[in-house]
Amino acid sequence: MFVSHFECPKCSAHYESEQRIQLCRCGSPLLVRYDLKKMRRSFRRRALALRKANLWRYWELLPVKKEENVVSLGEGMTPLLPLKKLGPELGMNSLYLKDEGLIPTGTFKARGAAIGVSKAKELGIKVLAMPTNGNAGGSWAAYCAKAGIKAIIVMPKDAPVINRKEVAVAGAGLYLVDGLIGDAGKIVGRAIAEYGWYDASTLKEPYRIEGKKTMGFEIAEQLDWQVPDVIIYPTGGGVGMIGIYKGIRELQEIGWIGEKMPRLVSVQSAGCAPVVKAWEEKRHESTYWENSRTIAFGLNVPKALGDFLILDAIYNTRGCAVAVEDDEILKAQHMLASHEGIFSCPEGAATLSAAIELARNGWIKSDERVVLLNTGTGLKYPETVTTEPPLLQPEARLPRV
Amino acid sequence: MFVSHFECPKCSAHYESEQRIQLCRCGSPLLVRYDLKKMRRSFRRRALALRKANLWRYWELLPVKKEENVVSLGEGMTPLLPLKKLGPELGMNSLYLKDEGLIPTGTFKARGAAIGVSKAKELGIKVLAMPTNGNAGGSWAAYCAKAGIKAIIVMPKDAPVINRKEVAVAGAGLYLVDGLIGDAGKIVGRAIAEYGWYDASTLKEPYRIEGKKTMGFEIAEQLDWQVPDVIIYPTGGGVGMIGIYKGIRELQEIGWIGEKMPRLVSVQSAGCAPVVKAWEEKRHESTYWENSRTIAFGLNVPKALGDFLILDAIYNTRGCAVAVEDDEILKAQHMLASHEGIFSCPEGAATLSAAIELARNGWIKSDERVVLLNTGTGLKYPETVTTEPPLLQPEARLPRV
Repeated sequence: MFVSHFECPKCSAHYESEQRIQLCRCGSPLLVRYDLKKMRRSFRRRALALRKANLWRYWELLPVKKEENVVSLGEGMTPLLPLKKLGPELGMNSLYLKDEGLIPTGTFKARGAAIGVSKAKELGIKVLAMPTNGNAGGSWAAYCAKAGIKAIIVMPKDAPVINRKEVAVAGAGLYLVDGLIGDAGKIVGRAIAEYGWYDASTLKEPYRIEGKKTMGFEIAEQLDWQVPDVIIYPTGGGVGMIGIYKGIRELQEIGWIGEKMPRLVSVQSAGCAPVVKAWEEKRHESTYWENSRTIAFGLNVPKALGDFLILDAIYNTRGCAVAVEDDEILKAQHMLASHEGIFSCPEGAATLSAAIELARNGWIKSDERVVLLNTGTGLKYPETVTTEPPLLQPEARLPRV
Repeated sequence: MFVSHFECPKCSAHYESEQRIQLCRCGSPLLVRYDLKKMRRSFRRRALALRKANLWRYWELLPVKKEENVVSLGEGMTPLLPLKKLGPELGMNSLYLKDEGLIPTGTFKARGAAIGVSKAKELGIKVLAMPTNGNAGGSWAAYCAKAGIKAIIVMPKDAPVINRKEVAVAGAGLYLVDGLIGDAGKIVGRAIAEYGWYDASTLKEPYRIEGKKTMGFEIAEQLDWQVPDVIIYPTGGGVGMIGIYKGIRELQEIGWIGEKMPRLVSVQSAGCAPVVKAWEEKRHESTYWENSRTIAFGLNVPKALGDFLILDAIYNTRGCAVAVEDDEILKAQHMLASHEGIFSCPEGAATLSAAIELARNGWIKSDERVVLLNTGTGLKYPETVTTEPPLLQPEARLPRV
C-alpha cells in the first residue's frame, strides 16, 4: 500500500488519504499520490509476469488497501490490436487500436467504476449518486450491485435507451431528467447536500482517475514497456486522458519506462469541441460550448471539470487537439469494421478520423507508432448503422459474388 | 503442429487433414484429431505461463499451422467470476460464471469464428456463406472482414436487429429470409452447390468446434488445472458443449488434468427442448421440435446437427439435461445483474435457472464447484429489460433512499 496523500493539481493543497473526500476546497478535482520512491525500490516490473490479465495486476499502484474490498467483473488488459490493413492504407505503418469494447458493460467506464466502487466499499459508503450521459451510469450501477452499494443514477431523457436498461437491470435507482446532463448534475447535487450521499460525479471523487490510468499502464506493458509516439483519445469529460497521462508519469517515476512521453491527442466532435478551441487559442481552460450536439454522445460535454488537466497533458507532451465532423466519425466507424473487424463506438471511431487528418497534414509521420483508444463497443450504438438488406422468400437464389 | 487427421464420430471414417472438407460422407460432422501422445511428451503446461491471455495461448492444441494466418481480435481468456453473493444464497457455496460477454462481438461465437476464419484463410477460401439466427453471423462477418474473406450471411427476418447491423457494418453480404433458420440454410445450401462457396454453417466445417473447445481449456486453467464438478451450458446448436467435452478429453490425454470429468449439463428453453426430451427418453438423437419458441433466440434450434454428440457428452459425464421456462430465464437474468453486476444474455441466464433447480432437487450438492457458462452480453438483448423510470423536471428533488 503506497498511497501517501491527495494533492490538488490547481492550488497544491494536500489532504490525508483514507478519508471520504470529494473536491479540493478550491473546487478542483484531487489526485491520489503515491510514495513512488519507496515503490521504485521495492516493486519490480517482472513481478507482474505471472499475475492475472486484468487491471488489478497493478495492485501496488492502485488505491484499494484490502483485497476483500475489490469489486471486480474481470475488467482490464483489453487487447491492443495492430491495424495491419488500415494503417498502411492510411500512411501509418504502425497503427494500433486499444479495444475497450472487451470489458464489463462494454465501455472503458468500467475501469473507473471498478476502482471507484471498490474504494467506496472500503470507505464504508452505502449510497452514492451520479449524473450521467449514460455509459458511466451503466458501469457504476453494475459494480454497485456487486458491491451492495445503492446507486442513484440520473440521466437526460435523451440518453441512449440501452443505458437505462443496464441501470435498471442492475437494480439501481434510475431517474430521467427533462433536460441535459447539467440539469441531472444539479438534481444530484441537491440530493447529496440534503442526504449526505457519496458524490460519484465525474472527477468529484478522486478514484475514477486511478481506474482510467491503468489504460496507460497496459499500453506500456503491451508494447513491452515502450510508450508509443502518439496516443489519440476521444475527449468528453477527459478522465481517461488525465488518467493515461498520470499513469505514464508514474511508470516513469518508478523507472519502469524511460523518459519518452507519447504525444497525447484530444479528439472532439466539431459539434462540441471546447478543448480543441482552448488549445487553438493556447488557453489553459475551456469555455462552455453552447448548443453542443454530436452523434458521439460521450463527447457531448460542453465544459469538463478537468479541462485544465486535459490541456496540461496536451501541452506537456507536445500533443494537440483535433475536432472531427460527425459524418467523418461514421465513415471511420465503418472503415474499422469493414477493414479490421472492429465494431467501435462513435467516440472510438473519432480517433481514427483524427489520425487520418494528422497523418495527412504530416503531424504524424509514417513510421511513428500510434495508438487509437476505442472507448467502447459499437453494440451499444445500434443507431449508428443503417442497413436495408434484401428480404428473400425461402425458394430464392442468392446472386453470385 | 500436432493435427493428425479428421475423424467421423459417427462412422469412424478418417480423412487426411489440411484439405478443404465439410461433412463426412455419412453426413456427420467431423472432428479434428491431434497426435496427443507426441504432444504429451513435448509440450508442458508451464509453457503457457508467459503467453498472452487469449485463446491462442493453446497454439499446439489448435489447427492453424502458420502464425501469419491467425485472424484475431483479442478473443479468449474471459473471466471466471465467483458468484459470492448469489451462490451461497442459492445453496451453492462454490458457484462461478464464465463471462463470454467480454469477447469480440459480445458472444462466444467469436471463438468459433476466430479459429474457423483463420483456418479458412489458411486454406485459401475467398467466399464463405452461412445461415444464422444472428450472433454467429455477426461474429463471422467481423472476422471475415479482417481476413479479407467475403462472407454471405442469411438470417431470418425476425433475428435481432443488432445482428443485422453488425453484419452490415462489417461489409458482409446480408440477406433476410421470410422464414426460419432452416429456410436460410436451404438458400445457403443451394448457393454453395451452385457457386462452390465454403460452407460455414454450424458443424459443416470442422474448425468451429476447435475454437469453442478453448472454453474447456480456460475453465481448467483458471481453476489451476482442476475441473469443476459441474458445467452448465445453454444448448442451441450445442457446439460449445461438444467443444468443452472434446477440450477436457484432450487435456486428460496429454496429462494436464486428472481423470475426473465435470458433469456436463445441457439447458434448453421449455419452448424448444429437443435435447432434454431425448435425454429424458434415454435416446441418442433428438427429434425435430415443432413450433419452437423462446425469448432466448440462441436456443431456438429445433434439431441440432450435432445432437448425438451433445447427448454423448451428457451420458459420458453422468450429466443431465434441463428445460427452463422463459419467465424463469428473465428472473435469473435480473438476479445476475442485481446481485453480481453481470448483465448476461438470456441464454446465459438460463444456466442459473437450471442450477437453481438442480440445487433444489439435490442433483447439485452444496459444496460442489459449479460453472455457469454465460454465452454473451445482455447488451445485445435490450428487449429483455423493461423499465419506466420517473421523468423529473430540472428543479425536482430526489426522494430519500
